[in-house]
Amino acid sequence: MAQRPHVVIVGGGFGGLTCAQSLADEPVDVTLIDSRNHHLFQPLLYQVAMAGLSPAEIAAPIRSVLHEQRNASVLLAEVEAVDLTSREVKLVGAERDSLRFDYLVLAAGAQNHYFGHDDWARYAVGLKDLDDAVEIRRRVLVAFEAAECMHDPVEQKRLLTFVVVGGGPTGVELAGALGELARVVLARDFRRINPASAQVILLEGGERILTSFPEKLSKRATRDLAGLGVEVRAGTRVTRIDETGVFLGDQHIPSATVLWAAGVRASDLTRGLGVPLDRTGRVLVQADLTLPNHPSVFAVGDMTSFLHQGGSPLPGTSPVAMQQARHVAHNVMASLRGQPMLPFQYVDKGSMATIGRAAAVAQLGSLKLGGFLAWLLWLAVHIFFLITFRNRFAVLFNWAYSYFTYKRGARLITGHRLTAGPSRSSLALAPVAESAPPPAPTGSGPQQAPPR
Amino acid sequence: MAQRPHVVIVGGGFGGLTCAQSLADEPVDVTLIDSRNHHLFQPLLYQVAMAGLSPAEIAAPIRSVLHEQRNASVLLAEVEAVDLTSREVKLVGAERDSLRFDYLVLAAGAQNHYFGHDDWARYAVGLKDLDDAVEIRRRVLVAFEAAECMHDPVEQKRLLTFVVVGGGPTGVELAGALGELARVVLARDFRRINPASAQVILLEGGERILTSFPEKLSKRATRDLAGLGVEVRAGTRVTRIDETGVFLGDQHIPSATVLWAAGVRASDLTRGLGVPLDRTGRVLVQADLTLPNHPSVFAVGDMTSFLHQGGSPLPGTSPVAMQQARHVAHNVMASLRGQPMLPFQYVDKGSMATIGRAAAVAQLGSLKLGGFLAWLLWLAVHIFFLITFRNRFAVLFNWAYSYFTYKRGARLITGHRLTAGPSRSSLALAPVAESAPPPAPTGSGPQQAPPR
Repeated sequence: MAQRPHVVIVGGGFGGLTCAQSLADEPVDVTLIDSRNHHLFQPLLYQVAMAGLSPAEIAAPIRSVLHEQRNASVLLAEVEAVDLTSREVKLVGAERDSLRFDYLVLAAGAQNHYFGHDDWARYAVGLKDLDDAVEIRRRVLVAFEAAECMHDPVEQKRLLTFVVVGGGPTGVELAGALGELARVVLARDFRRINPASAQVILLEGGERILTSFPEKLSKRATRDLAGLGVEVRAGTRVTRIDETGVFLGDQHIPSATVLWAAGVRASDLTRGLGVPLDRTGRVLVQADLTLPNHPSVFAVGDMTSFLHQGGSPLPGTSPVAMQQARHVAHNVMASLRGQPMLPFQYVDKGSMATIGRAAAVAQLGSLKLGGFLAWLLWLAVHIFFLITFRNRFAVLFNWAYSYFTYKRGARLITGHRLTAGPSRSSLALAPVAESAPPPAPTGSGPQQAPPR
Repeated sequence: MAQRPHVVIVGGGFGGLTCAQSLADEPVDVTLIDSRNHHLFQPLLYQVAMAGLSPAEIAAPIRSVLHEQRNASVLLAEVEAVDLTSREVKLVGAERDSLRFDYLVLAAGAQNHYFGHDDWARYAVGLKDLDDAVEIRRRVLVAFEAAECMHDPVEQKRLLTFVVVGGGPTGVELAGALGELARVVLARDFRRINPASAQVILLEGGERILTSFPEKLSKRATRDLAGLGVEVRAGTRVTRIDETGVFLGDQHIPSATVLWAAGVRASDLTRGLGVPLDRTGRVLVQADLTLPNHPSVFAVGDMTSFLHQGGSPLPGTSPVAMQQARHVAHNVMASLRGQPMLPFQYVDKGSMATIGRAAAVAQLGSLKLGGFLAWLLWLAVHIFFLITFRNRFAVLFNWAYSYFTYKRGARLITGHRLTAGPSRSSLALAPVAESAPPPAPTGSGPQQAPPR
């Protein structure tokens, strides 16, 4: 074991990365593990999904972010298990050592939650990482392309019908951006179809969208969405999703592109910890963010349930994760110095959601903003929080370009060959990956037999 | 059939797109078909492969490029077959019509050529499109990551050995960028390995690299490559490639990352045309760029073999494709007006190749340039030819950032989960796609059982 205390952090998102950075000048060794090499600025993931930004503009290699921090190491690895008794983190892959820790910080985040209908995942893509975002982008763009060639009007309508499930901030942002893509960005790009005729439907099970915002702002958002051609249907429950579209009980919405923003649950890492979890698998952390009976094991962010004053859990947002992360760093050092650890107190700095290019809703305490002013505030806040100088400038430039020219720079279809499909258009459906050949010589000619 | 003559163009690369644009103000209807939605600036593809640029910075949606051109339609589709007798282009997918043409321009490009060893494609990734480039990037970055965790020194060395097969401009550019990545960009990002100790080997079957350049420039390039840590081995023939590395007869180079730049052959589209082809499947076009006995069917670019004065075929480069494309547009209009079509004459404006960030070789007639000056010229030429304003600015900005800060902005590993592999490190090898589960809820926790 290293001479200095070893802090192992699982996860390089807002929680894990902030915690590592908060320990920069402390007499500890930090090892941060993530199964991806980059930190992702998730609030802007929907922009990648709607072809407004490129992946590299919202992500930074974790090594890059931490490379000046001499006490930090980064490992690209998957965690197989966490053994709290032997104080080891086991990594996937037999040649890899287990990591022994003195302190452990779990920040593994959340994943999409299909409420027991994991089979829907194939048809309804979630939005948790860059691969999701690029896949959504692919399906959306391919749907328009396929509609351009489609002569059957019923199928064409299905291709031009987009459904977003879930009326929280993610769903609202996706739906707004999708409406904008159809009505503004793609408007003149097609000859046979009119992209503006695309139907975007936002489904929400509750009484209104954005239930975590004041009702006045929900109404504002609904109006702004309507202006972008998005139809909001509240009080609707999805009973089934398949390759034909979405079922709401007896009602069927034929759609080729369904996006899932209806719920998240904790990373599966929580299952093996042997501590109490809530209904979505989140760890019920103590007031000082430790696990019960494990004073040197902490958890932060979306994989945790921290009961706020009044007993409701804090939301899974980046400010929560970041504040918790800094607090954990403080508590680790307190523990090392033999001082008492402090309970965590969340300072609510407000929340916001965008609707399209020039509108948003934002609330801070009793301050409620809507429209363009809220959008400017959203822009400033998000730019400020982006990780590197370059990303800030690139994002600003891209937005400026997009704003003034209505173009979408990142409007590429990559990653899959077109499905050489059966008689109905399968371009917009489940990806080809399952049957895709291994990387083969490519060309723009007809698909050749894959080499094996 | 449309009232105006219908020109169908297969392929949206330099040849196809330039041809479409050259017909912008003519009294014809143009339909451009490509199986991808974007035009790719291939000369900069190696920059994406080496994490210097993002895909969106070197590609533009074809619709975007052509959306102001009222006589042009774009179809995202794969060509199943070309029927020269009935003058139809059949598209993949039963619900899609065949396209009837009055004039046909084939510009389907080239694909990687493994000289009869298509099984090597799995281990040696080529560089013909964005998916290739992103895959190369993934393998290269994962190799460094895996080496960081690797305790077995033999396997670690294998992971830090990179082989580029093919000493033409593509191979030279890849190898130089790879050397630069290892020695400069990643230099301080790792704690256990020293990325600068990575070995980059460029294999060339001929007597020297860059055989299409004067010998003096080949020597210059070899020296510059050595400065970036790239070892050039000329006069070597690869006899086998597998998951352990590369075999040169009895000699074995253990390597986890092999890049293929050794040859191209024509798109498979040429096979069904019923016209004479050369050894790499290229169409032997007439002097006026038509197919023999088909005066209204043209072919341009990498899928053709046009015999230059002296009998040697023109190289598969973008200036050749673009000049041919403009000439075809001219000949189509001549044919429509009942005038004679003209033979094509290629004007050689020189060629260039870069070596790393600040060096290149360039030749124009008897003018030979090397070093930084050649690199500036290369930069100017490539920026000028990029498709859209935004791309030019973004590329310039990225390069300026990269040049002054030695950072690589686009250094993301996307597109695949880490392989939960067998006992040897399989991170850098064949992609997971074959056994990957369908899109499933994701998280940064351990891989969960795939939903089915």
